[in-house]
Amino acid sequence: MRVYLAGPEVFLPDADEIGARKLEICRRHGLTGIYPGDTTLELSGLAPRAAGQRIYGCNRDLMKGCDAGIANMTPFRGPSMDVGTAFELGYLAALGRPVLGYSNSARSFPERTLAYFGLDPAPGEGEPPARDPLGLAIENFDMADNLMLDGAILDAGFEVVTRQVDDPDRLYRDLTGFEACVEALAARRETGR
Amino acid sequence: MRVYLAGPEVFLPDADEIGARKLEICRRHGLTGIYPGDTTLELSGLAPRAAGQRIYGCNRDLMKGCDAGIANMTPFRGPSMDVGTAFELGYLAALGRPVLGYSNSARSFPERTLAYFGLDPAPGEGEPPARDPLGLAIENFDMADNLMLDGAILDAGFEVVTRQVDDPDRLYRDLTGFEACVEALAARRETGR
Repeated sequence: MRVYLAGPEVFLPDADEIGARKLEICRRHGLTGIYPGDTTLELSGLAPRAAGQRIYGCNRDLMKGCDAGIANMTPFRGPSMDVGTAFELGYLAALGRPVLGYSNSARSFPERTLAYFGLDPAPGEGEPPARDPLGLAIENFDMADNLMLDGAILDAGFEVVTRQVDDPDRLYRDLTGFEACVEALAARRETGR
Repeated sequence: MRVYLAGPEVFLPDADEIGARKLEICRRHGLTGIYPGDTTLELSGLAPRAAGQRIYGCNRDLMKGCDAGIANMTPFRGPSMDVGTAFELGYLAALGRPVLGYSNSARSFPERTLAYFGLDPAPGEGEPPARDPLGLAIENFDMADNLMLDGAILDAGFEVVTRQVDDPDRLYRDLTGFEACVEALAARRETGR
């Protein structure tokens, strides 16, 4: 079973090392990880946009060749996950592949949204407001992120794995939640359910 | 031709009115807009997560019934677009539907990313830094957002439409870029290319 490993850790300087650790965890559970950062694409001589488009095409084809996907849904430059990873979750879900996800933030989505606006209500202050300061609704569906993301994972019969990683250096590098996803996928494969 | 209309304007208090304007623009160009906010789902009595999952299932089925998609890629709570909309772009792209997108920010993706970190280099200061203050790479592919989003739109033979809307009240309501997408899609349909 080939598993597409989506996540913003590809933007870290040690992306290759993190990828190697992810592949090793997959291997230990009998799965084959496919890490988008581990390809050696020839991009020299291409204009920036053509280079970006070539990387897109490569990732698109990698996804088509996979049987499942695991996404790092840790908040990225804002209250929500990385948009490239969100795109990939949608792509894999539409291909009918089971998708799983983990986040290294256990704070609720409304809490994170309020924190983005500099509002940080103490716990136990009751229901968060229904709208942000710009008037946009704050989703409050007891989900880790926007309902399209969590919805796809629940639809596949899995739950988003969340845990709180406070050390900023470990935020995109801690793979405990990732391993829990790998275990859930490997168990599903064993039981065939 | 049924066109799925993805975007974070569904979170505004006047979401229905904006949806009606989008449908009318589609109609004027011979297309049928499908706006996810215009469904009347029965959610009463459902626990929050079950309600979110039902909305997911509804949007998923709406996408399956569409022939194309147009996404509002305007930055949403951070430098990038709304993650739910990004998911939908990926979903539609994997279904083989042509996808288009517009953004009401014309600032470059690196500029917006730096601004998120409180860094606001003056124009003409040369190349933006390759990494953000947390060490994560800043994509610089001459694209409106993460390369997976722009890549899917370029792959479909379209370009992301960007324009600068400075009035915060109009940020998610200005439909000039949206109409340009509708025109491009209608023209493609006419010529069959």
